[in-house]
Amino acid sequence: MEIVISSAPFNRAAALSLRQAIFVTERGIPRDIEFDDRDTPDRLYVTAYQTPDTPIGTLRLEPLADHQMRFGRICTSRILRGQGVGTQVLGAAEKWAREHGYLTGIVHGEVTAGPFPEDGAPVVVLQKSLD
Amino acid sequence: MEIVISSAPFNRAAALSLRQAIFVTERGIPRDIEFDDRDTPDRLYVTAYQTPDTPIGTLRLEPLADHQMRFGRICTSRILRGQGVGTQVLGAAEKWAREHGYLTGIVHGEVTAGPFPEDGAPVVVLQKSLD
Repeated sequence: MEIVISSAPFNRAAALSLRQAIFVTERGIPRDIEFDDRDTPDRLYVTAYQTPDTPIGTLRLEPLADHQMRFGRICTSRILRGQGVGTQVLGAAEKWAREHGYLTGIVHGEVTAGPFPEDGAPVVVLQKSLD
Repeated sequence: MEIVISSAPFNRAAALSLRQAIFVTERGIPRDIEFDDRDTPDRLYVTAYQTPDTPIGTLRLEPLADHQMRFGRICTSRILRGQGVGTQVLGAAEKWAREHGYLTGIVHGEVTAGPFPEDGAPVVVLQKSLD
């Protein structure tokens, strides 16, 4: 497995293709909610590839104020779920954020019964020190 | 079936997701060849959707000089090939180009034994008047 952290066109395309398949086609998130105005050309994506032509997991790096990094739009290919791909993607993202001066990592994780809805799905906010 | 002609983020994501699946994962075109620097935020894509969350065919509008429009990166989902999706996408693209002042449409189509290679695959150039 290879993990690429880059805003290169191929890495963005891989990230968007996973989100199309998982969030929109599989999960039914409306396409114009899922694909917002933050997938800009300079956006960094953390993407795992099983082989160079097969992306299997991704997230979007979303810097916030106060040296916080939000890890957004996390997803893993359906056929590979439960095998630690997401953990490795998140681990690589945390390492990158730590090395670039971010102090806190934030993930909005979905839960079955959560405290507030986001894009229609209940979520819980998880916060972690990157020390 | 719905055909969307737009540079909206969701339509670009749909186009890129089809190209990732078809050109890169299925056909083996190198990812950094397939995704070039021309998928800019203002790029128009013509994308067919079976339902709003399931894109099934796409092409990229690539204006050339002399009122020529190249219809690039044409592809259709594997499971729906041979059912006229590509014809409808191309028809919608030609109509759009004609209505926007383009006089000639160009397609680089792959052939089994063609006159020159493009990105490793032999291709033939097809040109059509949009009158």
